[in-house]
Amino acid sequence: MQSQIFSYPSRATGPLTCLIGIRSYPDYMRPVAIIGIGKTAFGAFPDRDLRGLAVEAGQKAMADAGIAPSQVEAFYLGNFAGPSFTGQNHLAPYVATGMGITGVAATRFEAACASSGAAFYHAVSAVAAGLHDVVLVGGVEKMTSQPTPKVTEILAAAGEVSGEVKAGATFPALFAMIARRHMYQYGTSREMLAAVSVKNHSNGAKNPLAHMRKVITMEQALNGKPIAEPLTVYDCSLISDGAAAVVVAPLERAAEFTRQPARLLGIAQASDYLALDEKDDITTFRAVQAAAAKAYKMAGVQASDIQFAEVHDCFTIAEIVAIEDLGFVKKGEGGPYTLEGRTCLRGERPVNTSGGLKSKGHPVGATGVGQICDIVIQLRGDAGERQIKNHSRGVAQNLCGSGATCVVSVLEAV
Amino acid sequence: MQSQIFSYPSRATGPLTCLIGIRSYPDYMRPVAIIGIGKTAFGAFPDRDLRGLAVEAGQKAMADAGIAPSQVEAFYLGNFAGPSFTGQNHLAPYVATGMGITGVAATRFEAACASSGAAFYHAVSAVAAGLHDVVLVGGVEKMTSQPTPKVTEILAAAGEVSGEVKAGATFPALFAMIARRHMYQYGTSREMLAAVSVKNHSNGAKNPLAHMRKVITMEQALNGKPIAEPLTVYDCSLISDGAAAVVVAPLERAAEFTRQPARLLGIAQASDYLALDEKDDITTFRAVQAAAAKAYKMAGVQASDIQFAEVHDCFTIAEIVAIEDLGFVKKGEGGPYTLEGRTCLRGERPVNTSGGLKSKGHPVGATGVGQICDIVIQLRGDAGERQIKNHSRGVAQNLCGSGATCVVSVLEAV
Repeated sequence: MQSQIFSYPSRATGPLTCLIGIRSYPDYMRPVAIIGIGKTAFGAFPDRDLRGLAVEAGQKAMADAGIAPSQVEAFYLGNFAGPSFTGQNHLAPYVATGMGITGVAATRFEAACASSGAAFYHAVSAVAAGLHDVVLVGGVEKMTSQPTPKVTEILAAAGEVSGEVKAGATFPALFAMIARRHMYQYGTSREMLAAVSVKNHSNGAKNPLAHMRKVITMEQALNGKPIAEPLTVYDCSLISDGAAAVVVAPLERAAEFTRQPARLLGIAQASDYLALDEKDDITTFRAVQAAAAKAYKMAGVQASDIQFAEVHDCFTIAEIVAIEDLGFVKKGEGGPYTLEGRTCLRGERPVNTSGGLKSKGHPVGATGVGQICDIVIQLRGDAGERQIKNHSRGVAQNLCGSGATCVVSVLEAV
Repeated sequence: MQSQIFSYPSRATGPLTCLIGIRSYPDYMRPVAIIGIGKTAFGAFPDRDLRGLAVEAGQKAMADAGIAPSQVEAFYLGNFAGPSFTGQNHLAPYVATGMGITGVAATRFEAACASSGAAFYHAVSAVAAGLHDVVLVGGVEKMTSQPTPKVTEILAAAGEVSGEVKAGATFPALFAMIARRHMYQYGTSREMLAAVSVKNHSNGAKNPLAHMRKVITMEQALNGKPIAEPLTVYDCSLISDGAAAVVVAPLERAAEFTRQPARLLGIAQASDYLALDEKDDITTFRAVQAAAAKAYKMAGVQASDIQFAEVHDCFTIAEIVAIEDLGFVKKGEGGPYTLEGRTCLRGERPVNTSGGLKSKGHPVGATGVGQICDIVIQLRGDAGERQIKNHSRGVAQNLCGSGATCVVSVLEAV
């Protein structure tokens, strides 16, 4: 038996620590492109299994890029809790072999709700560095085979189990606290939260792959069943099955594969404490600010240069915090900006044109790569009824937990 | 509801498919060094938690390299089944913040028993590519808080659950089949398997951090309690708690941190089908052969140039198969080679001088990085009673499941 001789540092010393060790890519690194995308529908699919969903998305992405499985030099899979949801672990080679991909490195990345964001970050980095030319990145989650209380328990494990979870604070409760504090500090109202939900449902209703294609009214959103005050059921994202995949290659080779490559201008991943009580200010996420700062720097852009975004609206308040932390608006102005319709499809900076996690669905491990697909669909002008006018530069922001992991990606039409 | 419109490829077409897409690092990539190592004891520690174990190993590795947490540019964590064993998921930022590391990317890698091997592979690749200068790689598993049948169930999830596991084939049964076939095909005997166990227990007894520091006789090994014929309890590795960590940096900067750097000459990760029945020949692992071929090529060495090795002896038969697949001996000669004592501490090519998974212990997610630490300890001449004579070049082989993931690393004293 051993005693625990070390002690944990109690908390970060402030926002500046987030930037320590964060550097841009070295100059010799290659520009990277997304050359293929593929998504399953998101929803509740009782007769689909995890492997089948992931394989469908991967095959669609490879078909979109016009490549064969034998051309895939490495496979990156984002998955949060496949073993807990389905009983199957060691998922990366399992999914890879389901597509006929063997021999090459096949690795699962877990960073909770940002799992496939993290997989994408590492894949892009490997291609930028010249380690690989053609890689496949997938994300998948199969959630609906478990009853809702079990799903909530599995999701809660992305928070600090020995502290928050033991005290009964699941994610709806944690984000309710964030919402309450945002309301207190900045005057954010229930209507502003509901405006996120109304907008995202409106967008999702136009998305053929969305889980809940249902338009809702402000009145419905305000009078939803309470989940954790002030959040109602219309403030919470969905429990979904689904998968997404992208093929990444050096930009210089993109024309070999596609006439519609998307350029990855900048990307960063950052982390922070899991527990909410370790944060100085719960209305902002240091990891989001750090990742955005680095991704923008790498991309050579300012927040004001971003035309549209897919952000991680696990709860409505999370979208408001996200557009603030991404620098689209000043701190505290996310609520009014949303209520004024400026993030709608025809607004000045559309946010979550896919319907977001709220309406499109949130198969946790698929969400990060799914956002990349949704950005590329807009960049290509393929969004149909949801197509926005200014669609040449977009951002994806994939968060986890109450801000302990964040991946920010800046993409541009070529 | 959707139907499954795709079909799985039924199996790989043979060993050659393993080499598709496998390339060496581009020439501009930098040589990489291990500049710090740290391990906890492996064992059953009822009063230690997963985070505490991982933090202890990480802090030891940082102290060994003489670096502060603020110098760590990214954190790579290997962990197989923390959520199932402990209920806590989203482990990478949880462990990172426990060491005072925030802001930077902190990602968990899961590749079953090769989880920290995969984390190490991706970390080395990032440093070689110039993405980072100083990264910390950890591996951890906390297993003993679950009863043994539950541990077996959690481990079995690294196999194909819908097929093998449903049919009742846990890993002892699968490796028993491999052993039986190896015996049939090559005349491998029970004594040869037992010789692996006797040697590894002898080595582990000399390792202060080993789980079971107990010398056993050939008679004991042959008469152990049956687990899955022909394997007895002495053919099976241990269920352990533990953690290991290494600090990786470019070789050109190693002298800033340590007088004892180890150079990473070559590394590769490869994958294959999970299920044993997808293999043409169950006495050999294609993923091991593929990873070894690439790692040797990158290192510019032949198998005959390797002086010693840490291999993945999850079962005694796995060590015999490993030394064959790594090319130390011809196929089928691993058993006699071991029985003749040629892999002992004073043999021509010592294998598992640490005691291996059999005696040192097998905290699954810690095993890959633990092997790297054990190779570095020999390279430095710090192995005490276990120190071997020719210790300038060693190989670590980290396997998972019945061969679906393998990472091979070649290290050399500077």
